[in-house]
Amino acid sequence: MGQRSYPSLREGQQLWPTTSYKTLRAVVTPQCLLVLDFRGLGLERWLVLELAHQLASHTNPLPFEFRALEAILQHRVSALQARLNEVHPVILDTLESLVDPKLLSADRSKLHVLLQNSKSLSELETDIRVFKDSMLKILDEDEIIEELCLTKWTDPRVLEESSLGIDHAEEMELLLENYYMQAEELGNDTRELKGLIDDSESVIFINLDSHRNVMMRLNLQLTMGTFSLSLFGLMGVAFGMNLMSSFEEDPRVFWLVTGFMFLGSGLIWRRLLSFLGRHLEPTSPPPIPPVWKRNLKTQDAKAGLR
Amino acid sequence: MGQRSYPSLREGQQLWPTTSYKTLRAVVTPQCLLVLDFRGLGLERWLVLELAHQLASHTNPLPFEFRALEAILQHRVSALQARLNEVHPVILDTLESLVDPKLLSADRSKLHVLLQNSKSLSELETDIRVFKDSMLKILDEDEIIEELCLTKWTDPRVLEESSLGIDHAEEMELLLENYYMQAEELGNDTRELKGLIDDSESVIFINLDSHRNVMMRLNLQLTMGTFSLSLFGLMGVAFGMNLMSSFEEDPRVFWLVTGFMFLGSGLIWRRLLSFLGRHLEPTSPPPIPPVWKRNLKTQDAKAGLR
Amino acid sequence: MGQRSYPSLREGQQLWPTTSYKTLRAVVTPQCLLVLDFRGLGLERWLVLELAHQLASHTNPLPFEFRALEAILQHRVSALQARLNEVHPVILDTLESLVDPKLLSADRSKLHVLLQNSKSLSELETDIRVFKDSMLKILDEDEIIEELCLTKWTDPRVLEESSLGIDHAEEMELLLENYYMQAEELGNDTRELKGLIDDSESVIFINLDSHRNVMMRLNLQLTMGTFSLSLFGLMGVAFGMNLMSSFEEDPRVFWLVTGFMFLGSGLIWRRLLSFLGRHLEPTSPPPIPPVWKRNLKTQDAKAGLR
Amino acid sequence: MGQRSYPSLREGQQLWPTTSYKTLRAVVTPQCLLVLDFRGLGLERWLVLELAHQLASHTNPLPFEFRALEAILQHRVSALQARLNEVHPVILDTLESLVDPKLLSADRSKLHVLLQNSKSLSELETDIRVFKDSMLKILDEDEIIEELCLTKWTDPRVLEESSLGIDHAEEMELLLENYYMQAEELGNDTRELKGLIDDSESVIFINLDSHRNVMMRLNLQLTMGTFSLSLFGLMGVAFGMNLMSSFEEDPRVFWLVTGFMFLGSGLIWRRLLSFLGRHLEPTSPPPIPPVWKRNLKTQDAKAGLR
Amino acid sequence: MGQRSYPSLREGQQLWPTTSYKTLRAVVTPQCLLVLDFRGLGLERWLVLELAHQLASHTNPLPFEFRALEAILQHRVSALQARLNEVHPVILDTLESLVDPKLLSADRSKLHVLLQNSKSLSELETDIRVFKDSMLKILDEDEIIEELCLTKWTDPRVLEESSLGIDHAEEMELLLENYYMQAEELGNDTRELKGLIDDSESVIFINLDSHRNVMMRLNLQLTMGTFSLSLFGLMGVAFGMNLMSSFEEDPRVFWLVTGFMFLGSGLIWRRLLSFLGRHLEPTSPPPIPPVWKRNLKTQDAKAGLR
Repeated sequence: MGQRSYPSLREGQQLWPTTSYKTLRAVVTPQCLLVLDFRGLGLERWLVLELAHQLASHTNPLPFEFRALEAILQHRVSALQARLNEVHPVILDTLESLVDPKLLSADRSKLHVLLQNSKSLSELETDIRVFKDSMLKILDEDEIIEELCLTKWTDPRVLEESSLGIDHAEEMELLLENYYMQAEELGNDTRELKGLIDDSESVIFINLDSHRNVMMRLNLQLTMGTFSLSLFGLMGVAFGMNLMSSFEEDPRVFWLVTGFMFLGSGLIWRRLLSFLGRHLEPTSPPPIPPVWKRNLKTQDAKAGLR
Repeated sequence: MGQRSYPSLREGQQLWPTTSYKTLRAVVTPQCLLVLDFRGLGLERWLVLELAHQLASHTNPLPFEFRALEAILQHRVSALQARLNEVHPVILDTLESLVDPKLLSADRSKLHVLLQNSKSLSELETDIRVFKDSMLKILDEDEIIEELCLTKWTDPRVLEESSLGIDHAEEMELLLENYYMQAEELGNDTRELKGLIDDSESVIFINLDSHRNVMMRLNLQLTMGTFSLSLFGLMGVAFGMNLMSSFEEDPRVFWLVTGFMFLGSGLIWRRLLSFLGRHLEPTSPPPIPPVWKRNLKTQDAKAGLR
Repeated sequence: MGQRSYPSLREGQQLWPTTSYKTLRAVVTPQCLLVLDFRGLGLERWLVLELAHQLASHTNPLPFEFRALEAILQHRVSALQARLNEVHPVILDTLESLVDPKLLSADRSKLHVLLQNSKSLSELETDIRVFKDSMLKILDEDEIIEELCLTKWTDPRVLEESSLGIDHAEEMELLLENYYMQAEELGNDTRELKGLIDDSESVIFINLDSHRNVMMRLNLQLTMGTFSLSLFGLMGVAFGMNLMSSFEEDPRVFWLVTGFMFLGSGLIWRRLLSFLGRHLEPTSPPPIPPVWKRNLKTQDAKAGLR
Repeated sequence: MGQRSYPSLREGQQLWPTTSYKTLRAVVTPQCLLVLDFRGLGLERWLVLELAHQLASHTNPLPFEFRALEAILQHRVSALQARLNEVHPVILDTLESLVDPKLLSADRSKLHVLLQNSKSLSELETDIRVFKDSMLKILDEDEIIEELCLTKWTDPRVLEESSLGIDHAEEMELLLENYYMQAEELGNDTRELKGLIDDSESVIFINLDSHRNVMMRLNLQLTMGTFSLSLFGLMGVAFGMNLMSSFEEDPRVFWLVTGFMFLGSGLIWRRLLSFLGRHLEPTSPPPIPPVWKRNLKTQDAKAGLR
Repeated sequence: MGQRSYPSLREGQQLWPTTSYKTLRAVVTPQCLLVLDFRGLGLERWLVLELAHQLASHTNPLPFEFRALEAILQHRVSALQARLNEVHPVILDTLESLVDPKLLSADRSKLHVLLQNSKSLSELETDIRVFKDSMLKILDEDEIIEELCLTKWTDPRVLEESSLGIDHAEEMELLLENYYMQAEELGNDTRELKGLIDDSESVIFINLDSHRNVMMRLNLQLTMGTFSLSLFGLMGVAFGMNLMSSFEEDPRVFWLVTGFMFLGSGLIWRRLLSFLGRHLEPTSPPPIPPVWKRNLKTQDAKAGLR
């Protein structure tokens, strides 16, 4: 809510409390709606094209101040809804492509889009909360609601109607409550969206970590292979030295050593791989599943008994 | 809660306050229950098959409006409970398989299932809170409860009973409170489930990080081995050069150098491994355990003194 | 809190408000305590062995309903305390061994124990909050407290005492407040424990990350060594080729090249290591310490002036 | 808010309640403004240069105490605004350069700047909340507002005016509310900024993790290449041994073995790379996108129906 | 707050409500201060040395019960302040050395200190909140404050003074409010400190991750070098085989092949490095900076217009 400019009340008794949301200041009288200071808010089109039309239509049997207030509130709520509708699909699309488990690394441009939209979302959340707070403040004080029913105090026919059981103040409260509910629903939607972003970020992190672990295991397996080859390659290097080993003339030794090098590398590698497999597996089976399952059943049983 | 449509009250005095949860709008009178606008909510089956049956049964000695309200509330709460029962076991199963310490990387399809169910859970949480808020609003204002006891105002016999000490408004309050409690319990369950998801995510991260550290240590140990082999292999390469080293004719040098290469590699590797072991271990023992233990005892002592 | 079953009140005026926590439903009259529906709650032993004994003892000068209520509340609070005492040391022990900086990877079975206990802790937290909420609801409404003082309304002697300045309702309020305080303290303890788990998880992550960085630096240093050896080993390989280099017959060249290979590798490795050292160190000293220190002094100064 | 020093009220009836925010203690009378204890607060310049000028100007038709209070409140709010304006662009600039996806590692000096500014931001948030709380406390109690309107009680002309419909207390409330709103807006801005920091930190982490994954994949691909080369290099080492292989004199064998070594390495590497490609890709397509899309449409449909 | 032991009130009318914070139970009468049950709280020194002295001094014109209450409250608040002063500098020092960007890995002993102090901080936070809650409960109920002004009811002179405009109850409220404010400020300080710990942990994580990325890039660059050397070393190995390549007798081939090996390795390495450079850089410049900058300006403009 903007600033309910306090000097405006001093202009005279015939002026009524201004309703001002986000620097839109309007003075509502039973016959007309004075909108102050609407420059720079981008509201010109709405004021000229829609609001006038809406107020002029006499299909609505309600007093003028009801129609004026409803028009303003409806515009506010639908503006908030429009901002949510704009941000919502973009965030869902971005999250969708970011949590895609096929991706090895997060697309950095998507992250920027997400960051910008999540900034817009916070701003929207603030605006919705401000709107809700100002509505709640009015709803909490019955006097303000009474004051808002201008026709009641000025139009004698209304007093008669009132004795017939139709209470203007109650209707005003229902009108305000209605828009409060709509704002509350918008607030719930933004909160859910924020929670979805948080959950998705956790999933993105787990995805990236999982990829890394998988790659690290592959890397480790290859390092094991390279190590085995180096170890047995050393034998080949030894025999490659220009030194006398007394095996030089025996033709079987070549095949023996070569075979030993390749077979040895293979065997050592295999042992290392199986060691890795055992190393990454814990010894005892985790005892949690049965515990949770049992809890779940008690939970169901409790629910069933109720 | 949906929109308590404010014009609906203007249709006449004989209509009573509508109770509307999530766009189910019903008008309760002492004799009948008018359900408005139930299309598109998937409630047709419930309305036709169950509600009519439930309302018709005269085994319940309570006035009609009590039975109608109880039927609606019970349906709402059991619908919420059903959604929780649907999501609960899936989330537990998914978490169980995700926190399994045997897994090197998180199963990406499980993560998607978790993300979807945690989205459903947030939506369920919102709905439960909305239901609780609307119940609380009714419970907070005694007038609304009084208004809900329709028979009290229309049936003269009730007034007599009331003088016998049975208060309809109090019973109505207990009925509403009962369903509020059930919704509260559902809310607690969802919150606990959310907390469990958060805790499990931490455990998943620690698991993945632990795996990575274990693999990195293995990798480091093998890199150390490869380094040692390269270092002493260089000696073999040197002797493999087509250059004169004046050792060419001595048959013992071959075995000497070969033995030196293998033994040297092994020794250097061993030193590196023991260096790694010392490097990863901090010098001073951590002083925390005694502090926590002592705190614990004071805690127990305090508890015992009470 | 369980369901304060609303039909129970309809059985007659001689029955008093039921006190029901977690489906224990009891009807307290000035002379006796009727416990309803205690099956399946595991309370049989307590009821038979302790409660009867406690109620029978006439050392307490308070009216019967005070003693009955106190017995029930004390049992509830000590049950909650017992659950906390069970979970507390296990969590502290598990955290202690998990934050141990000597460990390269988190013990996966400890993580499971932690997860299970942190689930129990959330459930305990929920139960404590439910207990506190139901106490608070009674404390907030003076009428309920008045109603709970049964003897006041039935025993004429009490009315006399009351004129002497001892107020039963006030005593009842103090009794309830006392147990509310104890529950509050339990709630604070669970919250602190939850905070400790969170803080410890951060420390575990920093520990694991630190270990990884240390291992990665060692790995990098060895990779640098291996690279140097490969680079200068290439020279040896070149001279090992069966090609004419015209140096074959000069005996000094062997020692020259071999020395160059080893020395070169060592020098390059050393340069790489010092490059790594400079690379990881930022150029300018961080300007934060003085700022924080100064803030701290102003803080102390402010505190001293007060 | 500082300490409303309670002894100050005892000095006499002609002194009015002190308004003190953050140890600025002022006594407002209808004719003058006594500022106590302004030393050490850095307010001298403001007091001498601006406040005197502001209070002296008679263009404002409001009573003196209004002008004094407004001057103090305006100074407080603009001081808070100035601190936010100082911190805001620095944080945005730092975050901008930190979330830059081109950076492989976060600039450590930027991190320090961020940490310092985020500390300032928390302090600012605390001060804004303290200011709002103290304003709210005054706004909640109508008596304090009445007391603040000093002229009302001392100036007979004001009482006349009051009967003409201008209520000093209401104006005072509007004045205070106005500054409360401004503080609320500042609080919203700081909260949004804090949220932006949190979101950016997540993005930074995802960025760093993504970079790491990309580098790890490259590393893995090169390790695969090195492994292939080692494997087939072993063959070359075998033929380099000073042992009889009976192929020594056949000139085609050289080209055969050499070709086999290079081609084999290449082929094995290629197989490993394609294996890596398949390994990182999950088998089944993730089923989430349609689900979210559908939800989105229902959401839009719901919004449209309203 | 400890247990306001409810039986203590039954001892007689001349005893006044006990004030008990953290099991310190005191009974204040207009003439003396009875402290009950101070054993085991470590308060003996304070009681004997300071409290007696403080109460005996007659420089303070306030009634005895004011002085007693102020002494107790001041002791409580300064005890809390002392605990904060103890924990505050340690945490700042530890964080300072932990966020130091020069460190490759977090000092594990510092982490333990941080964990212990952050545990103390949570306990302190709980105690401050408990103290504030109990103060607030007294401040919220005017009756309790009235009751605390003992002299008012017993001393006839006070009643006279009261008619002169000095209200004891109001002074008592200001006294309590004063200490409430001090506790609030302590609470704000602890919250800021907690926030600082959280922010610092994020910075530590980013620091560690950045170091890791830098090291990983270096590692990758060296792996590239090793790969290039292996690739071209394979050529040397090929020519080192004891097989006929028909180049054996040409002296230029040696230099040609050697040069090709070294130059080829260098070229391939360079290409790989430039490939890495391009790979880590995104193609399109991020579009965020202008957006944020523009937002910032609107923000400033908005602030300026106000």
